[in-house]
Amino acid sequence: MAEEKKQKGITVTKDEDFSEWYTQVVQKAELADIRFGIQGFIVHRPWGFMIIRKIYEYLEKEVENQGHVPYLFPVAIKEENLTKEAEHAGFTPEVFWVTEAGDKKMEERFALRPTGEAQIYPVYSLWFRSHNELPFKAYQSRHSVYRNEMTTRPFLRGREFLFFESHNVFMTHKEVLNQIEEDLGTCKKIIHDKIKIPFLYFKRPSWDKFKGADNTYTPDTLMPDGKRNQLASTHDLGKNFSKAYDIKVKGNDEKEHYVHQTCFGPGIWRIMAALIGIHGDNKGLIIPFDMAPIQIVIIPITFTKNKKDSDKVIKKCRDLKKKLKSLGYKVKFDDSEWTPGFKYNQWELKGVPLRIEVGPKEIKENSVSLAIRTEQGRKKVKTASLDKEIIRASKKLDKQIEERADEYFKNRTKNANSLDELKDLIKNHKGFIRVPFCSVEKDGEECAEVIKTETEGGNVCGTLYPKEDNIKPNQKCIVCGKKANHIVYIAKSY
Amino acid sequence: MAEEKKQKGITVTKDEDFSEWYTQVVQKAELADIRFGIQGFIVHRPWGFMIIRKIYEYLEKEVENQGHVPYLFPVAIKEENLTKEAEHAGFTPEVFWVTEAGDKKMEERFALRPTGEAQIYPVYSLWFRSHNELPFKAYQSRHSVYRNEMTTRPFLRGREFLFFESHNVFMTHKEVLNQIEEDLGTCKKIIHDKIKIPFLYFKRPSWDKFKGADNTYTPDTLMPDGKRNQLASTHDLGKNFSKAYDIKVKGNDEKEHYVHQTCFGPGIWRIMAALIGIHGDNKGLIIPFDMAPIQIVIIPITFTKNKKDSDKVIKKCRDLKKKLKSLGYKVKFDDSEWTPGFKYNQWELKGVPLRIEVGPKEIKENSVSLAIRTEQGRKKVKTASLDKEIIRASKKLDKQIEERADEYFKNRTKNANSLDELKDLIKNHKGFIRVPFCSVEKDGEECAEVIKTETEGGNVCGTLYPKEDNIKPNQKCIVCGKKANHIVYIAKSY
Repeated sequence: MAEEKKQKGITVTKDEDFSEWYTQVVQKAELADIRFGIQGFIVHRPWGFMIIRKIYEYLEKEVENQGHVPYLFPVAIKEENLTKEAEHAGFTPEVFWVTEAGDKKMEERFALRPTGEAQIYPVYSLWFRSHNELPFKAYQSRHSVYRNEMTTRPFLRGREFLFFESHNVFMTHKEVLNQIEEDLGTCKKIIHDKIKIPFLYFKRPSWDKFKGADNTYTPDTLMPDGKRNQLASTHDLGKNFSKAYDIKVKGNDEKEHYVHQTCFGPGIWRIMAALIGIHGDNKGLIIPFDMAPIQIVIIPITFTKNKKDSDKVIKKCRDLKKKLKSLGYKVKFDDSEWTPGFKYNQWELKGVPLRIEVGPKEIKENSVSLAIRTEQGRKKVKTASLDKEIIRASKKLDKQIEERADEYFKNRTKNANSLDELKDLIKNHKGFIRVPFCSVEKDGEECAEVIKTETEGGNVCGTLYPKEDNIKPNQKCIVCGKKANHIVYIAKSY
Repeated sequence: MAEEKKQKGITVTKDEDFSEWYTQVVQKAELADIRFGIQGFIVHRPWGFMIIRKIYEYLEKEVENQGHVPYLFPVAIKEENLTKEAEHAGFTPEVFWVTEAGDKKMEERFALRPTGEAQIYPVYSLWFRSHNELPFKAYQSRHSVYRNEMTTRPFLRGREFLFFESHNVFMTHKEVLNQIEEDLGTCKKIIHDKIKIPFLYFKRPSWDKFKGADNTYTPDTLMPDGKRNQLASTHDLGKNFSKAYDIKVKGNDEKEHYVHQTCFGPGIWRIMAALIGIHGDNKGLIIPFDMAPIQIVIIPITFTKNKKDSDKVIKKCRDLKKKLKSLGYKVKFDDSEWTPGFKYNQWELKGVPLRIEVGPKEIKENSVSLAIRTEQGRKKVKTASLDKEIIRASKKLDKQIEERADEYFKNRTKNANSLDELKDLIKNHKGFIRVPFCSVEKDGEECAEVIKTETEGGNVCGTLYPKEDNIKPNQKCIVCGKKANHIVYIAKSY
């Protein structure tokens, strides 16, 4: 690996070929290994896995603070449960089936879960009897789901991909609406405030809702190639599933009631893909300080001709590592055989937020050189004030990541007032295009299909949520010319 | 559920029918739900899952302190990889196969992993080139593995069960031996010192090693029915897998060397089963303080006839909850509609370590009543000294759990000097039986088979490790009568 590494910088710029840049970052920063040998099943390598684990930790902490309890369901789904809710049965064409055990055909095959509803809700029907047991808020995390996707891409689309899902049970629709607000708030707190990914909230058009839901709400971001990346979704399931799976409780009125349900799924992979794509630069990955598997790397500058100086440098590096670790930072002292320049490149590629360099000069001056991943060059810092400087630098890094991401996202929405204008814009504008549109109910689907065909893949993402864009009385749907009732957002999608 | 709960105490004692007691605790303490509908696939309910998560957290922290990095491999294994190591291919008869996707037969089926080696080691062959990259220490955690077991039991044997595995790569066998010491040390630190489960270390006889290993070492405990419960295992894989999967690196000598490997698997489920079985009592579960999902439950004693008193009680309970939470404890204020007595039983069944009761009397005296799960009765404690009393009580609980478990385990080993004596002892002695035995190599397997048949299931667990029991020169194997070279331990097993 060592020899290979030597030639392993990113060889394209993010602007000129985002797709190739992304592939190289995933591989060269050692986030995932796609050489597992089964399409769509990737190895989460330590560096990538530790970042993803942080995403999980944020989400777990947040939903538990909201009163969710964790549980874990099997990977399996009984065939009869998979198809009980009529719309949800739409997952069937893409599920994997376990049909054999050892050298025998099984009496009853089972599916690998494509998502949790059809495995969880039959059990919910056994758990609840009285309205006193509600609301019930629970989630499962750090598990995978399985869908036989045709095209696959690390962190964007897989046959196996990492999942997080909460499944809540309520007596009333009012609680459902509150839960959806809470879920969208979770996205803001974690995906934006912690992970620094900007997005817009949408309410999906009825033809693009989750299979079985009454309504679907999503935070969507844009990748640098202009494609929409759905980061999460929260669903108002109404009573569709409680009726299909017979989940009912005795109410205050002593009568049986089917329960209301919501489910929420932040896209762990999608958030990771956005982190890579939006924060990264031509040198590689950039990671918010708190998320980095290594936050500070210490690199010694030593010269073989002067052993005494080198010893001092090594000693100082070791002392610094010990001190910074004791302060709670994740620190690496890179005393490998490579040249300092090679090490800089490697750790920049991996997105380590801060780098400390110590050479004979720094020893003499009782200082260190401190470099921030988001800035050029380095700064001399007195060793005595290093604690403070690291706090300052880590805050600066996070601020720069957030500002750059917000700036990147800010001007990504344009308007089109005709199909031709849309077709023209979508060729070069890497972002959302806002258009007047007839209907987001079933009767608008035909116009959405026209847009998809005419734009070679443009999707109606939905209407802005919670506050839709204003529409003027005279605006017409860009496809059918009928009265426009909504401003919808168009983008190609992952 | 509420009505059901009312009748839900444990209806048998642990001594009179351990098997039924275990089943009831699993179900009534809401650890797992076996009504998922596919044999051997259980739902980990929140209470059980939170305890198990703590086991994972202990292990993850410990192995990361030792320098292991986390990663995650797919659930899938390519068929050709499953059978590459000749002995390891022995897993094939029990694997599940995914053969269909949607309504189509797949071109190439894949197996659900029965354990990680056959999926991880082909990728290791891509990762390492030079001895400089070794040692490499990594693990995966919180995933499941799949084996088509005939009989299944929650936390003891499943078709799907929770896994933890570290896979290490070394240049030398010396490092392998060090790693095995480290792994056994991990078992001591976590399984004994934290979770309070006593065990003996064994070196398995050659016919009962892990498929493909040179040697297997295990901490084994005993369940109250006398059956051995293997809590973990660490394997010296030698170069068996590196040769099969072509994992080699260039050494200092510029030549290619196959690497040495170890793997280590604490049995997450088995540890949970031991916690349930060994610590529990006739009232239900008992959980070490640090592991409890709720550490302190606060129960108000209110009387509807005196609203003013009740309000004071409720207020004090709320204040206590707030205060104890701020001190970092996991606290529940149970203000549900049930009677205090019913609540006591419920939380005892679930194993909550400490209970605080507050009634009008306690208000008057500015005190609370404090009960410890491992003790009868409760103690009046001044509210002002509650902090200190909780620390004292939690330590007392842990000490009692540990002492009781060690005491339980201490006298569980007896000696037999003939097959008849063994057959006689094994009927009633719920524990290990030590016997002189000819050989733990291949040539002893026949005698082990005789023991198994004659004792209706007694297994040769192996020899004590690291220090074998002394054997006298004149001792003979209890089966074949040849010179005994080892003292081995016999027990029936899960």
